[in-house]
Amino acid sequence: MGEFRVVLVEPEHEGNVGAVARAMGNFAFDDLCMVNPCPIGDEAFKRAKHAGHILSDATIVGTFEEAVEGCSLLVGTTGIVTYGPKNYTRISMPAQELAARVADHEGRIAVLFGREGLGLSQEELSRCDLLAHIPSSDDYPTLNLSHAVSIVLYELFQTKGRHGARNPISSEEERELLYKYFARLLAAIDYPDFRRENTEVMFRRMMGRSVPTKWEFYTIMGVIGDAAKLIEKEKEKK
Amino acid sequence: MGEFRVVLVEPEHEGNVGAVARAMGNFAFDDLCMVNPCPIGDEAFKRAKHAGHILSDATIVGTFEEAVEGCSLLVGTTGIVTYGPKNYTRISMPAQELAARVADHEGRIAVLFGREGLGLSQEELSRCDLLAHIPSSDDYPTLNLSHAVSIVLYELFQTKGRHGARNPISSEEERELLYKYFARLLAAIDYPDFRRENTEVMFRRMMGRSVPTKWEFYTIMGVIGDAAKLIEKEKEKK
Repeated sequence: MGEFRVVLVEPEHEGNVGAVARAMGNFAFDDLCMVNPCPIGDEAFKRAKHAGHILSDATIVGTFEEAVEGCSLLVGTTGIVTYGPKNYTRISMPAQELAARVADHEGRIAVLFGREGLGLSQEELSRCDLLAHIPSSDDYPTLNLSHAVSIVLYELFQTKGRHGARNPISSEEERELLYKYFARLLAAIDYPDFRRENTEVMFRRMMGRSVPTKWEFYTIMGVIGDAAKLIEKEKEKK
Repeated sequence: MGEFRVVLVEPEHEGNVGAVARAMGNFAFDDLCMVNPCPIGDEAFKRAKHAGHILSDATIVGTFEEAVEGCSLLVGTTGIVTYGPKNYTRISMPAQELAARVADHEGRIAVLFGREGLGLSQEELSRCDLLAHIPSSDDYPTLNLSHAVSIVLYELFQTKGRHGARNPISSEEERELLYKYFARLLAAIDYPDFRRENTEVMFRRMMGRSVPTKWEFYTIMGVIGDAAKLIEKEKEKK
């Protein structure tokens, strides 16, 4: 997994900034950058608690472009969920899926959070490679800024922690291979045609949610592949 | 999924209490109870934002026992992770696993959070049926109270949201049946004995992480069961 930079664009309350620094410390992140923040004073350091060093080491810049310099993937966070199959990069994904998606990215990843009131602007969002949101109640979807940061970093930490350097997660190509074997198994057991597509999608979703390691993927692929091949061989004999 | 009551035991800062109310609103919870809280005033309501009603409707009680009255499952949260196989109820599980575990509980569930400084006391923890923690950095594991509440409720909301009334999650018995079929498939394909146990545990973990619905479970069990039976039948012929 690559390195992460947390970018706050024009944060308005120093208390939130402090709470963001603390959350970063809690989930083992330390690169904080702010674009035109409010003044950062005692209240921020009080809220940062034992993560004051993250606050003192934070970079302050004047523009969005300076904040994301050196980052090879820009992730924008949004309270508004955009669906639709047409423009892939405009679709917002849940934080959990984001963690799985960026897990095999090698370079530096900027995770951007907007202003407390207005979030990221359309222009800022359109600069991002991926958009993420936090699933929440339709009645009150707007989370406090530091809570939103906290949940996104929690998801990234979970994926890092479960996999780490020694347990790399499977790549997209490997996963596709597994899905192909699963489809072969369905064919081998004469699974009803009209249910096949649904079942394949279901299997993809389940695997996607569990974010398997390379080892897990190869193991399950071995089992499914062997079963498919055995049944295919018996069929050929007939 | 049952009903939830969020219980704050002796919270010390009204700002945190307000932020907890907001997080509850964000994740569609509304039953808040506090044991001997600090005075709740303007600062709390300011931080609660559009979830002020949760704060005004909150119950304030004098003892732990009053707070959990009518609850059939008590979940304690802790910053200290207790491992060990001996006493099942003393093992702390990650928040994500908690969400999966309580998903098919029918009654009212109390989720308890301790004081900012000291957490829940040993006595309070020993009254709980389950313990949960939030995986975090070893260097700075102590989250802000409202952030901890936010992440636990986020996990519960995710499980509720993915499943809901129409998509109930599979029961423990159903899951055990699936694992049995998976073991049968391993035997059928002559999977090496020395790797069998590891692979079975791995499959359990992957399924556990993805918290499948009943429909997903029956579908995958159908595929695995059919494959196992087909191979077993061919073997018998020989």
